[in-house]
Amino acid sequence: MNPYVKAVEYAVRGPIVLKAGEIEKELRKGIKKPFTEVIKANIGDAHAMGQRPITFLRQVVALCTYPNLLDSPSFPEDAKKRARRILQGCGGNSLGAYSASQGINCIREDVASYIERRDGGVPADPDNIYLTTGASDGIATILKILVSGGGKSRTGVMIPIPQYPLYSAAISELGAIQVNYYLDEENCWSLDVNELRRSLNEAKAYCHPKVLCIINPGNPTGQVQSRKCIEDVIHFAWEEKLFLLADEVYQDNVYSEGCQFHSFKKILYEMGPEYYNNVELASFHSTSKGYMGECGYRGGYMEVINLHPEMKGQLVKLLSVRICSPVSGQAAMDIVVNPPVPGEESYSQFIKEKESVLNNLAKKAKLTEDMFNKVPGVHCNPLQGAMYAFPRIFIPAKAIEEAKAHKMAPDMLYCMKLLEETGICVVPGSGFGQREGSYHFRMTILPPIEKLKILLEKMKDFHIKFLEKYA
Amino acid sequence: MNPYVKAVEYAVRGPIVLKAGEIEKELRKGIKKPFTEVIKANIGDAHAMGQRPITFLRQVVALCTYPNLLDSPSFPEDAKKRARRILQGCGGNSLGAYSASQGINCIREDVASYIERRDGGVPADPDNIYLTTGASDGIATILKILVSGGGKSRTGVMIPIPQYPLYSAAISELGAIQVNYYLDEENCWSLDVNELRRSLNEAKAYCHPKVLCIINPGNPTGQVQSRKCIEDVIHFAWEEKLFLLADEVYQDNVYSEGCQFHSFKKILYEMGPEYYNNVELASFHSTSKGYMGECGYRGGYMEVINLHPEMKGQLVKLLSVRICSPVSGQAAMDIVVNPPVPGEESYSQFIKEKESVLNNLAKKAKLTEDMFNKVPGVHCNPLQGAMYAFPRIFIPAKAIEEAKAHKMAPDMLYCMKLLEETGICVVPGSGFGQREGSYHFRMTILPPIEKLKILLEKMKDFHIKFLEKYA
Repeated sequence: MNPYVKAVEYAVRGPIVLKAGEIEKELRKGIKKPFTEVIKANIGDAHAMGQRPITFLRQVVALCTYPNLLDSPSFPEDAKKRARRILQGCGGNSLGAYSASQGINCIREDVASYIERRDGGVPADPDNIYLTTGASDGIATILKILVSGGGKSRTGVMIPIPQYPLYSAAISELGAIQVNYYLDEENCWSLDVNELRRSLNEAKAYCHPKVLCIINPGNPTGQVQSRKCIEDVIHFAWEEKLFLLADEVYQDNVYSEGCQFHSFKKILYEMGPEYYNNVELASFHSTSKGYMGECGYRGGYMEVINLHPEMKGQLVKLLSVRICSPVSGQAAMDIVVNPPVPGEESYSQFIKEKESVLNNLAKKAKLTEDMFNKVPGVHCNPLQGAMYAFPRIFIPAKAIEEAKAHKMAPDMLYCMKLLEETGICVVPGSGFGQREGSYHFRMTILPPIEKLKILLEKMKDFHIKFLEKYA
Repeated sequence: MNPYVKAVEYAVRGPIVLKAGEIEKELRKGIKKPFTEVIKANIGDAHAMGQRPITFLRQVVALCTYPNLLDSPSFPEDAKKRARRILQGCGGNSLGAYSASQGINCIREDVASYIERRDGGVPADPDNIYLTTGASDGIATILKILVSGGGKSRTGVMIPIPQYPLYSAAISELGAIQVNYYLDEENCWSLDVNELRRSLNEAKAYCHPKVLCIINPGNPTGQVQSRKCIEDVIHFAWEEKLFLLADEVYQDNVYSEGCQFHSFKKILYEMGPEYYNNVELASFHSTSKGYMGECGYRGGYMEVINLHPEMKGQLVKLLSVRICSPVSGQAAMDIVVNPPVPGEESYSQFIKEKESVLNNLAKKAKLTEDMFNKVPGVHCNPLQGAMYAFPRIFIPAKAIEEAKAHKMAPDMLYCMKLLEETGICVVPGSGFGQREGSYHFRMTILPPIEKLKILLEKMKDFHIKFLEKYA
């Protein structure tokens, strides 16, 4: 068996989720539990938690799927117009044809226009856009190209701790070296360049650090980086000749007042040509998050800046081996970047649906923070963005001992007990990484607000009982 | 840059296709050529060549995409029934939710039932079925798990020559060792177990051969393996403890009289428990080929037999890092394995569409073989199955010299000239592998029959002129 594969860990769908599946089976068999359903707050899966798809996006994809519907009066003209344009970009006007390996041309053009609008006019070139099978695929592919060397010259990839475990998994799979830099929990999980420098300098002793991964807004932390922070990171990458990977899939998910999403691309441009012409950057986006939550379509894109032409050739070659990303996912991505605009027939419904999702998420972010912070032994930073809470939990010494006896991380023990006693499935902090001796879990804020309240109440009761039990 | 990535080659979308793209751009700019369009016969992309989607499949996927259509009288009840069942298997009844990493349960059940019907009742277990992002993804994932070791203990993967270059690409990417066994061109590209043995024994000197890949029906050869051949291969794999990968994506594409598709699974079962309980097998299928040609959906499945439980765990873990395959592709796969049956409303239209595609392909297979064999210096084996011709072409010594001077494979020179002079894009045999000193190209038989005739005439004229030029 491939030892690199064996070393891979992916907590978001790890042992806790397998256990949740077993419990669900038991419930279906009629086995009695202290709860009637398992609530999967382990993964950012909006539709599974009851969020409704954006009507316009589904209309366009349905029209592309079954073009007979283009004659139906029950579909709006603006959706038909988009569907016709996408189909014209498809071989044989069919979603069933392979696309170019880089993705359908007109969709890459729409992505480039979107980025220009988002970044206040900073130019974007469709040739730098690659449509991917979700953001995960883009990130894993770029990493695959960048990794090389053996022993001390093995590529080091710097990732935040806590991180989204796709990163550690991809690094393991490639046999690259994971280089941790710690986010500052005391300061709302912010990124401190001094910590980047410490981490880099230590890593140079045992590998060749070449890549710096940033997740903004943060997963699992929910932190939204300030403009100043991004400038510092870019300056650092420029100084140290690091390739920047900016995971920006939560760019539409910003809730806290005073927080704003700034793309790395925009700030890089505004820092002037010395930076903009030199720093290598890849930025990732997805259909799965934002207000659409279209995870199942596996749609995404990446934009690359200053990627060496030879590397670009290698990238296209590598993508071409899998031929292309799913074309219906590409179509969904098109609607994410090219939604109805004022004056179009579907605009008012679209904006209503979009704002309803985002306003709800903002309310739930605040509610979750407030409720967690009322529980003794729990501390939760503000959920400025994304769709997760990552509270710090106090775990008593007796519980830590019990976990050790079971060769389990203490927060895994905590989450397992939470699951078994309440049916609530969250992911232990150890799956994302955390400072030695601190314990956390990640929970999505996606359940409907009334359900989320009940869930938070249950977690509070569980936590208090847990503290008592192991006091 | 990753040296393994650099070593990857993928001819089906390689330099010849990049050149075809450039020529298309020139044509659009109005630059005059001896032809008015580029015909991409390089890839099995049915819809791009004008094949129409199967109506029923698209109706079901459209219903799943936009469930409001479930109330529409313009969709048949049998399509609605299938759509409701698929949606019930989706989180939140939405194609936009992530599925389980292994794929949606009810679709895996339908795949298992399909396999049982196909194999005359040989049992199939949904737990052994994994839904994948096309067959390519399944093949690459299994290989990733199996590869290990360094130096002489590096994993050897046996592949046919000629092969479909996904195999060589995946092997390069993983740093495994490609072990070639040659198909017998003089015997309709059949597989000879003595050649397998020769290849294996030689490989043992420099690697640890563990995997044996079979493509049946053959790509690019079009050969359909006999029952006897499959039995021999299975016996060989059993003797040598090789993991069998059976690429069976063309299982519906069998044309020649006297030829029949036999699945490795079925033959393995019929060879008795000593084989069936021991030989490790993974078989792959896809939405992209057959009569559906739904390449863009990136739907596929694999069935694994005798995979060690620990390996199964690793497989699910690896799949879970990418979370799931595209859910609309899973839905498309469901219709491939669960089409309308006699008595259902859509049956007659479905069977008419299916047979029309397959009958046309059979006609084109015969036409292509006949026409190629009329050209001096071209020999084409019968196209028993799949959707490609792989004719052998005589290349004169002068042309070989010219190619050498340009550091080009002789058949690449041939295909480049064919493209530049006629607009026809085919893939040189060197991209698939061939015996030293023999030359081929691969061409799909997907263009509509009238167009295919013209194309074959043009190729004939080109070939005769080529022979004259380099005589």
